[in-house]
Amino acid sequence: MIDALAEAGKAYACGEIPIGAVVEKDGIIIGRGHNLTETLKDPTAHAELIAIREAAKTLGGWRLLDCNLYVTCEPCAMCAGAIVWSRMSKIFIGTMDPKGGACGSVFNIIQEERLNHFVEIEVGLMEEECSGIMKTFFKELRLRGSKWDKQKEPGLTK
Amino acid sequence: MIDALAEAGKAYACGEIPIGAVVEKDGIIIGRGHNLTETLKDPTAHAELIAIREAAKTLGGWRLLDCNLYVTCEPCAMCAGAIVWSRMSKIFIGTMDPKGGACGSVFNIIQEERLNHFVEIEVGLMEEECSGIMKTFFKELRLRGSKWDKQKEPGLTK
Repeated sequence: MIDALAEAGKAYACGEIPIGAVVEKDGIIIGRGHNLTETLKDPTAHAELIAIREAAKTLGGWRLLDCNLYVTCEPCAMCAGAIVWSRMSKIFIGTMDPKGGACGSVFNIIQEERLNHFVEIEVGLMEEECSGIMKTFFKELRLRGSKWDKQKEPGLTK
Repeated sequence: MIDALAEAGKAYACGEIPIGAVVEKDGIIIGRGHNLTETLKDPTAHAELIAIREAAKTLGGWRLLDCNLYVTCEPCAMCAGAIVWSRMSKIFIGTMDPKGGACGSVFNIIQEERLNHFVEIEVGLMEEECSGIMKTFFKELRLRGSKWDKQKEPGLTK
């Protein structure tokens, strides 16, 4: 999760919502990503999707079997869908997102029986740090009086 | 939908599950995509995601306001999530996917009140053709006795 947090830091430095993710297999990180939706002007450029794509490239196939994803904030529906498609084994979540999360909050896509792939979840790994960087980001935005799309702001649990 | 079907034909020609999508704004197609998960070895390379990314590039921003998506088969959770993130207005679906669809079948992500963005849906546009190309594809696969990941096969309604 330390590496996922480092990715979140990179997003923060770019003025992006600070969410980071890494994909790990056998103790080695095979994919990294941080949120780049504004920078790339791409609604799909979430940390998890970027990390999953990089991991698939590293392994040379789309099935990320026996891989784990570490992500600082609960994945949205898009990313949760990608986690299911890539056949990930387990995900470790820093902090939950009750407003838009799709791994237990609004939906639980990665543990839906009808999708035929079940992903294990562990929540709360470095929660303080993962939610802290988000809170700082949004606090600073508000202080600067920046225009912000409220719909994108997660409702952090901590 | 004719253009989305043409995209599905391209996927078919590549040996991919034949699903195609286009994004339209003011009567002009600004993004096209067809399923390329096997070819690109990328679990996120679904028709809709590729079309959405191309449309965002065309418009120079991630908000696809006043845009419509035409897709031959009901989007999965990942693609439905991307449709919400990109603020699409309406989607036209050829055929539903009761086994994995996330626009009314397994989930209805694009009309979930808690996500703060509501996308209109119209189902059944050229349904016969959209489901026909999928059925042909899977029938041919079975005849060839190819190994196939059954989890990826949609349960078409028609």
